[in-house]
Amino acid sequence: MSPSAELLEPLRRGEARALGRAISWMENGHPGARELMSALWPHLGRAAVVGITGSPGAGKSTLTDQLARALRAEGQKVGILAVDPTSPFSGGAILGDRIRMGRCAADPGIFIRSMATRGALGGLARATQDAIDLLDAAGYDTILVETVGVGQDEVDVVSCVQTCCVVLVPGMGDEIQAIKAGIMEVADLFVINKADRDGADQVEQGIEAMKSLSCVRPWDPPVLRTVAQQGQGIPELIARIREHGLWLRAHGGLERKARERARLRFESLLAEAASRRAKARVGAPWVEAGIQAIADRVRDPYSVVAELLDKL
Amino acid sequence: MSPSAELLEPLRRGEARALGRAISWMENGHPGARELMSALWPHLGRAAVVGITGSPGAGKSTLTDQLARALRAEGQKVGILAVDPTSPFSGGAILGDRIRMGRCAADPGIFIRSMATRGALGGLARATQDAIDLLDAAGYDTILVETVGVGQDEVDVVSCVQTCCVVLVPGMGDEIQAIKAGIMEVADLFVINKADRDGADQVEQGIEAMKSLSCVRPWDPPVLRTVAQQGQGIPELIARIREHGLWLRAHGGLERKARERARLRFESLLAEAASRRAKARVGAPWVEAGIQAIADRVRDPYSVVAELLDKL
Repeated sequence: MSPSAELLEPLRRGEARALGRAISWMENGHPGARELMSALWPHLGRAAVVGITGSPGAGKSTLTDQLARALRAEGQKVGILAVDPTSPFSGGAILGDRIRMGRCAADPGIFIRSMATRGALGGLARATQDAIDLLDAAGYDTILVETVGVGQDEVDVVSCVQTCCVVLVPGMGDEIQAIKAGIMEVADLFVINKADRDGADQVEQGIEAMKSLSCVRPWDPPVLRTVAQQGQGIPELIARIREHGLWLRAHGGLERKARERARLRFESLLAEAASRRAKARVGAPWVEAGIQAIADRVRDPYSVVAELLDKL
Repeated sequence: MSPSAELLEPLRRGEARALGRAISWMENGHPGARELMSALWPHLGRAAVVGITGSPGAGKSTLTDQLARALRAEGQKVGILAVDPTSPFSGGAILGDRIRMGRCAADPGIFIRSMATRGALGGLARATQDAIDLLDAAGYDTILVETVGVGQDEVDVVSCVQTCCVVLVPGMGDEIQAIKAGIMEVADLFVINKADRDGADQVEQGIEAMKSLSCVRPWDPPVLRTVAQQGQGIPELIARIREHGLWLRAHGGLERKARERARLRFESLLAEAASRRAKARVGAPWVEAGIQAIADRVRDPYSVVAELLDKL
């Protein structure tokens, strides 16, 4: 039996150890990764994938924790992927967040993974996508993808989810401005967390103002208030997430998102594979000499790349 | 005379219009872009490239504005690139920031460009890198690269600069925690902005604590205080930026950074070019059918990509 076939059964049964190993395989480009993904592919598409995004300090971890526990209380299996794009540098820096989620971590029906990989092959967005697929195949009902902020990488991550919750908090006056209109196009739900603080009304007004400025979309993202630390607003949030899921289903949104995801994955895999293949053909010494020539300003990068491709 | 040759001379003279056009060429993959970059390549490497990074609301725009004006007062030509990764979605959303920098915008010795491109070819990091090179070739003495936050894209942007200033503010308690150890490895200077607010001491203690936890680096990043809106601390900041530049020069840091930049550019150009070439070989209908099969879960992305590459 091949290694990937050995992993397949425990994975499909939802065993956490198999899941953890499979995610690492994907991140590290293990030889069995491709075979495993091929075997799992027909089983995908069952899980609800929900994104929780927002600036540092917005309380995303606590909110995610509460969502997970509420869904768990309904008998669901819940996967949590905490995406931290700062950690290509440091690795494991997300520890603090995970400690905050300690109550969840003890529950075998909740699987938590920090996508804090140091240079995962193909980038964080693809590693996260792979992990979503693995959790999906392993029978997790809802997958919560928690991601900080608004970088390109997060945008790619967020484009993988079905329902994206954008979390804001009162008292970060500049934040709304900083988040800007861009976030409007990814938000399916706005959550004003820590809504017991002063300024929640202003945040809501700011959101409504942004909404009125942006083009009309078929789904009008609702604005909710939560105090995650006290569990306030969580049932309402879950209800709205479900409502959005049903709306997606009724309006062909799931197929559209599936196509977007397929395109992103295809493009990122192709870029990596085509590039690796090209480098392998000319060999590492040629590549290193080319990079050095660029650094020394003897040659420009465009011409080095063109020459490499001409050699194939 | 080829279009790129026509652009070359006004660009080398530092004319803003030529510069704006050349940046757009690079972003859009204009046919003349490659030739232009080849012609400029030997002229690069003169400018000081300084990154200003930090969370939304930290006052990066004001700080950048003040830095630009102070350098301008010394007679320097200053380029400002405001990188906003949220705008792949919305484009032009950075307008608010630019209005805040209105005083700079009127000065012909300061060139301002928002890198808020909707899906620039090869991503925002490469578009920014191209713009840095163009400003460098156009004779700008200092290039300030202002970028929000901590995503992978920003990390790539920041790895292009010579001196990276990380801007923090008092009163965002969770922020330090959120920024985490990751930022330690990109920070060459810490700036506590809005330092007249309560809590500046705590921010400084937080930074020092992070520094003590991370591995010892040959350059110990200093911690400065500014009140950018009043221009306080700007001369000191400029002095420290210069000090870091001299340190880099003395310790082979410039060559090391040049090599890193060369590698990033080579890899991203190659991935894009190799991928484009592969898709062109099989044709768009084949690609679209493959993506649809992935979306429909008939085939997995790994096998579609493998088949495509086997066809070449």
